[in-house]
Amino acid sequence: MAERARGRTIGFVPTMGALHAGHAALLDEARRRADLVVCSIFVNPKQFAPGEDLSRYPRRLEDDRALCEACGVDVLFAPGADEVYPPGFDTQVRAGRLASILEGASRPGHFDGVLTVVALLFAVVQPHFAVFGEKDFQQLALVKRMVRDLRLTVEIVPMPVIRDVDGLALSSRNAYLSKDDRARAPALSRALMAAQDEAQRGVTDIARLTAAARGMLAATAGVVVDYVEVRDPRTLEPLATLDRDARVLIAARLGGVRLIDNGPVFAGVRYPR
Amino acid sequence: MAERARGRTIGFVPTMGALHAGHAALLDEARRRADLVVCSIFVNPKQFAPGEDLSRYPRRLEDDRALCEACGVDVLFAPGADEVYPPGFDTQVRAGRLASILEGASRPGHFDGVLTVVALLFAVVQPHFAVFGEKDFQQLALVKRMVRDLRLTVEIVPMPVIRDVDGLALSSRNAYLSKDDRARAPALSRALMAAQDEAQRGVTDIARLTAAARGMLAATAGVVVDYVEVRDPRTLEPLATLDRDARVLIAARLGGVRLIDNGPVFAGVRYPR
Repeated sequence: MAERARGRTIGFVPTMGALHAGHAALLDEARRRADLVVCSIFVNPKQFAPGEDLSRYPRRLEDDRALCEACGVDVLFAPGADEVYPPGFDTQVRAGRLASILEGASRPGHFDGVLTVVALLFAVVQPHFAVFGEKDFQQLALVKRMVRDLRLTVEIVPMPVIRDVDGLALSSRNAYLSKDDRARAPALSRALMAAQDEAQRGVTDIARLTAAARGMLAATAGVVVDYVEVRDPRTLEPLATLDRDARVLIAARLGGVRLIDNGPVFAGVRYPR
Repeated sequence: MAERARGRTIGFVPTMGALHAGHAALLDEARRRADLVVCSIFVNPKQFAPGEDLSRYPRRLEDDRALCEACGVDVLFAPGADEVYPPGFDTQVRAGRLASILEGASRPGHFDGVLTVVALLFAVVQPHFAVFGEKDFQQLALVKRMVRDLRLTVEIVPMPVIRDVDGLALSSRNAYLSKDDRARAPALSRALMAAQDEAQRGVTDIARLTAAARGMLAATAGVVVDYVEVRDPRTLEPLATLDRDARVLIAARLGGVRLIDNGPVFAGVRYPR
């Protein structure tokens, strides 16, 4: 962008649209830090596997535009798929191990699609920094890894998970939930808290932390657990014991809708609840 | 590079060292076009498969430095493998179909390694343009494809194949050839000429063009053909007939040393030989 040459700080928030208060938090953070805020809206076909929800993924460009305006976005970039991936497109950015575990195990190819479009959008927008939500914690780790590995000149700014009043992490996919499943969905954040509470009691045995979280999920009917893991927050490697600050990561399905959530667990009693 | 911000044009020639007159042609071209010429020397482990010639690949940094000086290189960048790929490195740039054919069929993973290091070096050096030899024609096509796909802001400048007086395309790997095989190696460039001569006679049947090249290779003892192909010069797709300007691509082995060469064939009589 020519704006960069003019010495203005460019902040970037890449999204798939269907914007909610979680995205607004990312945009607000970008607005605080940047002279020029760019928001992209692109439902990236490369990050959906066949049979996933590409076609029914919520698209609400007019609402999104209004939210962007309210958040002080300067440039809303909403390209078409043919514009992003013209005929003959044949290049992929992909991660190794970090893309194959957790979400990658359930969604093969998903992160290759994410990294490819993020690299491409970074090249087009040329931001000084980009804001990503910790909601997609593995995605954030992968983007940081890519930026380090490929020496991209963009700072990655993480933002905490934004939650509804009952604790459910905001996600565009929450719109798929039936009324009953929406009422059950806070089981995930309660499960996080259960693991955090155990850690605060001084438990360092990872199996006991995940058991506490699984117990909380099992207490809610209709929740099908995909994984409950406590991992190193940077490498996402499994831990034998809570000997460092770590991350609890949960994926579960309710009525066919796959939800993810995550939160920190601290080694040693850190704060009172 | 801060030089870029100062408005100086940066030209870049990425190499694996063992520099020869072919590299000198790339550096000369960079010198003609740029204010600042950067040459990298890095024997990229990621583009060698297990069992390939990584450990014995020629390394002659002092000679290379002298050639760079003679060519007016401003910055010689010769990083170590740990510097390029620090522990935890986990990102890859890869192409699809274009990386799976021809050289990619014989050398799985080779072009992933090439694209990854080229993307990374582009990010470090931030050149306005980079010069690549047509000797590695598929590599050049892949780098162009990557630059287009990932919207990298670097111009790719191709340079024609530089040949020894007997026609052999210059390559650092020619040093592996025995004296006898070195004498036989111009069979590849003669095979190119045979196909070109057929095309100049008005032959458009691809099979007849490749047969002429194969005939020339067969006339030299000890040449084991890997492939002889006439392809679209941009997509490297096979052609049914010479209905456009195309590229002859040859790979063959002599005494265990794999050599490649390529040249244009023109649709319609273009020039007298």
